[in-house]
Amino acid sequence: MAPDAEAFDGLWAAIEPVGRDGRTGGYRRFAWTGEDATLREWFAGEAAARRLDLVVDRAGNQWAWWGDPDSAASAGRPGVVVGSHLDSVPDGGAYDGPLGVVSAFAALDLLHARGFEPARPIGVVNFADEEGARFGVACAGSRIITGALDADRARGLRDAGGTTMAEAMSRAGHDPARVGPDPEALRRVGAFVELHVEQGRGLVDLGRPVAVGSSIWPHGRWRLDLTGEANHAGTTRLEDRRDPMLTLASAITTARRAAAARGCVATIGKVHVEPNGVNAIPSAVRAWLDARGPYEPDVRAVVGEVAGAAGGVEAVEESFTPETIFSVELRDRLAALLGGAPVLGTGAGHDAGILAAAGIPTAMLFVRNPTGVSHSPAEHASRDDCLAGVAALARVVEDLTGRVA
Amino acid sequence: MAPDAEAFDGLWAAIEPVGRDGRTGGYRRFAWTGEDATLREWFAGEAAARRLDLVVDRAGNQWAWWGDPDSAASAGRPGVVVGSHLDSVPDGGAYDGPLGVVSAFAALDLLHARGFEPARPIGVVNFADEEGARFGVACAGSRIITGALDADRARGLRDAGGTTMAEAMSRAGHDPARVGPDPEALRRVGAFVELHVEQGRGLVDLGRPVAVGSSIWPHGRWRLDLTGEANHAGTTRLEDRRDPMLTLASAITTARRAAAARGCVATIGKVHVEPNGVNAIPSAVRAWLDARGPYEPDVRAVVGEVAGAAGGVEAVEESFTPETIFSVELRDRLAALLGGAPVLGTGAGHDAGILAAAGIPTAMLFVRNPTGVSHSPAEHASRDDCLAGVAALARVVEDLTGRVA
Repeated sequence: MAPDAEAFDGLWAAIEPVGRDGRTGGYRRFAWTGEDATLREWFAGEAAARRLDLVVDRAGNQWAWWGDPDSAASAGRPGVVVGSHLDSVPDGGAYDGPLGVVSAFAALDLLHARGFEPARPIGVVNFADEEGARFGVACAGSRIITGALDADRARGLRDAGGTTMAEAMSRAGHDPARVGPDPEALRRVGAFVELHVEQGRGLVDLGRPVAVGSSIWPHGRWRLDLTGEANHAGTTRLEDRRDPMLTLASAITTARRAAAARGCVATIGKVHVEPNGVNAIPSAVRAWLDARGPYEPDVRAVVGEVAGAAGGVEAVEESFTPETIFSVELRDRLAALLGGAPVLGTGAGHDAGILAAAGIPTAMLFVRNPTGVSHSPAEHASRDDCLAGVAALARVVEDLTGRVA
Repeated sequence: MAPDAEAFDGLWAAIEPVGRDGRTGGYRRFAWTGEDATLREWFAGEAAARRLDLVVDRAGNQWAWWGDPDSAASAGRPGVVVGSHLDSVPDGGAYDGPLGVVSAFAALDLLHARGFEPARPIGVVNFADEEGARFGVACAGSRIITGALDADRARGLRDAGGTTMAEAMSRAGHDPARVGPDPEALRRVGAFVELHVEQGRGLVDLGRPVAVGSSIWPHGRWRLDLTGEANHAGTTRLEDRRDPMLTLASAITTARRAAAARGCVATIGKVHVEPNGVNAIPSAVRAWLDARGPYEPDVRAVVGEVAGAAGGVEAVEESFTPETIFSVELRDRLAALLGGAPVLGTGAGHDAGILAAAGIPTAMLFVRNPTGVSHSPAEHASRDDCLAGVAALARVVEDLTGRVA
């Protein structure tokens, strides 16, 4: 029995208009906003329609359970969770996050239609505030419950309008006093499998619809403070200038060259120029470098080369996450189950990475993205590939819950 | 008889604290503000102390006259005007503008002490809003009276806080209804000599304290709209990227290289990055190019090369001013008077350039700036060089007014 295409379309159509910009076609679904509330209501409604038990954990993540996860966990048979998130980056795509949640419900429907009786509970999760687009910390929901993000720090994070996360949660009906590590919620999770649209062209090149994730590359962000000397753009001879914009140009080109030479990716996507006047040689330029790659020494070498090209300034490390390797056992089991699916690493962080770092057996499935584009309205997956993802996810859940390991 | 150093120090000391930032040592003296009002009162007081007749023209420029300029103009002997402006750029230096006004009063004092009787009226001018730091149009005072800036457009210009120039003038006691071309004020000006701190290192290299200006280079500003494709900084392969930041880097380095090859200056001092996120390949970068040089074809060639390096985008011309040549007769006469003073062009715009373009015989004197730095607290001129400037200005005024040409 194959996934029900019309039922999948129905799930997809219900959330498609929420937070969509009529002009760009992109989405703006920030955590703890009205759009987010609409999506959370939709999630609760889908859970109720399937008679799943809805639990909201201390960070506000929503879990919909088929079976009793607490008694199962006590009996040494914790549940298998699928799902992802529903929030977006500014002007983001439709698939990053929602595809994992919609596919999770569709996979449950497929198993139900087949008359499948799981030997372990099955959960569907909607992680809160995965993109960090509003408060600046990615994967806030999973970080809070695993203790990777301190509760007080989380409550005090402010959005661009000055609203704290605590205030935003409170207005959305989630008590910020509850925020903190939630071992009870985590105890229920025997394994987590996050299905996600691919954010690159790996599957396009391989001609395959679904891959299994191997790891999240080591990645970080570094700040470069490039100093110069403010001066008149019309009267200062070239040889008398100390123009930090030239240093920026050198950093940008070196980031690309060094990343290419070392099999990494590196991006300078954010700059701040002082005073940023048309007729003023800048006194200072601040630039941020995002660098990622399969091997940490290569990533650090790229950062070092960029700092060197920027006149030997210090690259101030604002954040760094070492490589996260998903469960090797799960990875191999899933790849075999899916007929030798390709295994791909990724440069993007995910809630799956946070749970893996907290010791939970975790895997990811990636669905082909014909454009390779993500965090943009051009992000896409074909309906056939989406249905292939649902089928793969159902097969995985069936395998992981149909027998007692 | 040499300039009175103590009197010069006294004039300088009176305005030194006005609008000075205690932290940077830089000045913030924007047009039609409280600081500007203080400086205008000082100007009026110095005029009164010398029994000069103060006239405020339709744009709010202050003119202090020794002798009756109207009857002299009617008799075919219009006056000789010296002076400059008192406003500043944000965090500007002490000398750009004020040195010309202070030196003008000091030169008059020197002539008076010598018992000099001018055969033509002598004026000292304080042009309003030369820097355009508040309302975005440089030389607004001289542009208004010559008709180069339309009165309605001037009145409607807004500062960063939304206040119009008309409102700001009104609050400062200048009736905005008066704003417009002022042929009566211009008719009084037989010649204008603006003394200004040099904004480069030409005189430092020549080992000379004072130069005569030859021309203002052709100069303009162009906007480059560099487009890319928004995408995820962590997951997008280098070969799949369309990153406009790389185009920016190419534009920056080409601007420097092309300007050096053609004897011009070119600066990218202002950029706007969209969405300017650390983990986002930008969708667009907007950059502004300031380019100037002795020869217009070279300036335009630099702009063309930069646009070519930026992938062939259009360089949108936001403003362009052709070369302004000061009176050749005045230039040669002044250089000879000052013992063969060097003759230098400049890349900066000045009120002298606006008056020259309006057909008034105009000259400039530059005073050595040991740092070469301008529009910065580091802008400087030694006291000896300032006094040499006063002596030169007095010599010039004496020559231009002591006989009927």
